[in-house]
Amino acid sequence: MNFKMVLKSLGILLICEAIAIIPSLAVSVIYNDKGLQAFAYTILLLIAVGLPLMSLKPQSRSIYTRDGFAIVAFGWILVSLFGSLPFYFSGSIPSLIDGIFEAVSGFTTTGASILTEIESLPKGILFWRSFTHWMGGMGVLVLTLAILPSVGAGTLQIMKAESPGPNPGKLVPRMGKTAKILYSIYFVITVVQIILLVISGLPLFDACVHTFGTVGTGGFSNMNTSVGAYNNVFAEVIITVFMLICGANFSLYYQVMKGNFKALFKDEEFRFYMGVVTASIILITINLYGSVFVSIGESLRHSSFQVASIITTTGYSSTDFDKWPIFSKLILFFLMFIGGCAGSTGGAIKNIRILLLIKTLKTELMQIIHPRAVYPVRFGGKAVDEKTLSEIKSFFFAYIFIFVAAVLVVSLDGFDIVTTLSSVAATLGNIGPGFAIVGPMGNFSTMSVLSKIVLSFSMLIGRLEIYPILLLTMPSFWKKVNI
Amino acid sequence: MNFKMVLKSLGILLICEAIAIIPSLAVSVIYNDKGLQAFAYTILLLIAVGLPLMSLKPQSRSIYTRDGFAIVAFGWILVSLFGSLPFYFSGSIPSLIDGIFEAVSGFTTTGASILTEIESLPKGILFWRSFTHWMGGMGVLVLTLAILPSVGAGTLQIMKAESPGPNPGKLVPRMGKTAKILYSIYFVITVVQIILLVISGLPLFDACVHTFGTVGTGGFSNMNTSVGAYNNVFAEVIITVFMLICGANFSLYYQVMKGNFKALFKDEEFRFYMGVVTASIILITINLYGSVFVSIGESLRHSSFQVASIITTTGYSSTDFDKWPIFSKLILFFLMFIGGCAGSTGGAIKNIRILLLIKTLKTELMQIIHPRAVYPVRFGGKAVDEKTLSEIKSFFFAYIFIFVAAVLVVSLDGFDIVTTLSSVAATLGNIGPGFAIVGPMGNFSTMSVLSKIVLSFSMLIGRLEIYPILLLTMPSFWKKVNI
Repeated sequence: MNFKMVLKSLGILLICEAIAIIPSLAVSVIYNDKGLQAFAYTILLLIAVGLPLMSLKPQSRSIYTRDGFAIVAFGWILVSLFGSLPFYFSGSIPSLIDGIFEAVSGFTTTGASILTEIESLPKGILFWRSFTHWMGGMGVLVLTLAILPSVGAGTLQIMKAESPGPNPGKLVPRMGKTAKILYSIYFVITVVQIILLVISGLPLFDACVHTFGTVGTGGFSNMNTSVGAYNNVFAEVIITVFMLICGANFSLYYQVMKGNFKALFKDEEFRFYMGVVTASIILITINLYGSVFVSIGESLRHSSFQVASIITTTGYSSTDFDKWPIFSKLILFFLMFIGGCAGSTGGAIKNIRILLLIKTLKTELMQIIHPRAVYPVRFGGKAVDEKTLSEIKSFFFAYIFIFVAAVLVVSLDGFDIVTTLSSVAATLGNIGPGFAIVGPMGNFSTMSVLSKIVLSFSMLIGRLEIYPILLLTMPSFWKKVNI
Repeated sequence: MNFKMVLKSLGILLICEAIAIIPSLAVSVIYNDKGLQAFAYTILLLIAVGLPLMSLKPQSRSIYTRDGFAIVAFGWILVSLFGSLPFYFSGSIPSLIDGIFEAVSGFTTTGASILTEIESLPKGILFWRSFTHWMGGMGVLVLTLAILPSVGAGTLQIMKAESPGPNPGKLVPRMGKTAKILYSIYFVITVVQIILLVISGLPLFDACVHTFGTVGTGGFSNMNTSVGAYNNVFAEVIITVFMLICGANFSLYYQVMKGNFKALFKDEEFRFYMGVVTASIILITINLYGSVFVSIGESLRHSSFQVASIITTTGYSSTDFDKWPIFSKLILFFLMFIGGCAGSTGGAIKNIRILLLIKTLKTELMQIIHPRAVYPVRFGGKAVDEKTLSEIKSFFFAYIFIFVAAVLVVSLDGFDIVTTLSSVAATLGNIGPGFAIVGPMGNFSTMSVLSKIVLSFSMLIGRLEIYPILLLTMPSFWKKVNI
């Protein structure tokens, strides 16, 4: 591994984080709150660690696949660790491990919280907490659409006809261009949503917080009872639509920008995603009508919001869905595993993988019936190669494997099964709230330190699509020489 | 499809079932109970339907893969339907759907019951109920070790160096020989266990019932509180050992019979299986000690029994494990998905598949670290081909997919999440009891008709390793001409 180059990259990342704290510091200045000092200390620390690393002079500037994974894994971990400092320094979260949990939850756009009381926190700290979602979402976009396809992690590259294609070994020069386009789209969506939420009646500060949570598909709110606190249908509709937008592949918006409006409806993953969303909304609306809400309108309102919130892995709630009938809750629970589309800010397994897995199952049945015929799995009119399918199937197993392992550790806390299973599903899939104790009206504060550490890693593992973090556990990952 | 040949085979199967009822009829004669007439009617019906089918004269005697799957799927369904008649005719189970559930549960060696009171049933009926386990276990052995490898369903064939190998299209002549060897081993194990249980103090009738339930890894008991009713440590140890024996690959015993004792310990799947068993027993023993049982001995006694019972998919209980701490319960829950070894009478995903999936995950991580090196997945010293691995990964997804679909239907009943999830896991994996309402001291009687039907299909799908039943849903399966 090219250690010096990895360290240099991490240094650059920390300096970027120092700059990213400035808006939150500005908010603290405006509200004259406790965040001011905390942010200042954190920025100084970031510069003190980042600058020496950044000024390292590696003999070679080559970044190989392994180095890329190391930068991604350690980058996310380091940024989260430093990002937790404002919570600690300001006294908002007195426990260091709780602060780290909250920061990891922020950057991974999970939205799971250990806070029992949110509204009394300093505005600057609340702003920072939600801003981490916005940065995390951006990081993920760049990671999945610009970096990962080029380092051959590859299952997502079938989506990207216009990408530089597989170029194993080195980060490609076009990465910069792709990233710039993505940032622009992301920025425009953010500004539009803030404006709309202000029009809907939310204060500017709340509009910013909820927009960061939406476009990053994070889910942190500045209200104890999340979006439900406003009881504002207009705002709920805006957030629902923007959650769904940010759960879809951003490269589609690039196509739309170029005038190719059909791309959206021709895209198989997008249609599958909207199909799952529609089916889930209908089923849950029927289930809620009469049993939870007396009007079909209210049922539709909350089922739409909740389905969009869970499948996009955002995690906002408009009502206490933990009180819903089990059929609705289980649909939401399984949506936690499906997640957003590839190339979105959403997490979990992703629609394209689920779609291709179902297609594979179908072609395998056809293969049994007609052993001598050839049935390729098709996506977007093209046959998907065996290697990609194989990787997707491995990913599915790896995801379930990690889920089971984490559940067993968390179960040592002795919570009920629903809390245990959903706490892992909600963190691994980067959703945020689960059910029961970690439900929309609950939080993760009563979990043990061990569980908080395991769930923090679950968030990172889910966010980085498993492999970067798992690689850290392999001894040969650390050997200096590539073969 | 060669319809006439399929029907003829089904006819033969029904006549075999008529013969298989005779021992139960004999028990009813001895105890002079209500089963007598019920068995007689059933036998007459079986002959009335079976004989005409059996005497069909197909133009061609060829059985292609598809026909094989059709025989297996319909064979299992028909035999279960007719097998439920003695319950109905004798008035032991007044509801037809309940009787079918019980019979499917018997033949698939599941052991899930809708009965709320078992001990008052006629002895003949109780004998028949458990005898279906014994036949089901035998059927599965022949299916997985003698028939399936030869019709190219194939993921298990890596286990069978001595099998005729893949010979897609036709059932092979050597099938008869393999089946005979398997029957002999199965028969010997049965007799030995009955003798040992009688020595341990169980009445002969109870010894037979529990042996059928053990060797078939079924789990039906003639006592309301299962094996725990005897509070007999010796019997529990015997049953534990025999459950573990019957959850391992029977072809290993063939090797041992031929004098190759090392085969057992050289077999990677067997070692993995014993490793999982040992680790689970240790973890649960520690978890139970102090919290549920005051002595380490009692903890070990019940944890060994329960781990063996669940991983082998038998489903007997020595105590109410539903009252155990959540860590222990979740271990048992996940063991429900692992199940027995390939070529055993146990169900679920099977150890070899889990082992190979874990190995695949590990090689894929190595592949990322060293992109230019080649890391084959090895099993028993040989590289496993990509096609087999791909099939195993597909199987894993298919299993989880069916699980999710069934859970959603069952959740319409409105039971708690634990009951809902475990009822499906326990039927799909052919275990029997789950947790909460369907726990070791509960039963499936309060489930809706829809759930009972869905769970019956879950048992069949699990037992036949998914594809035979899923194929029935494909329109092209029913077309007459092969391409």
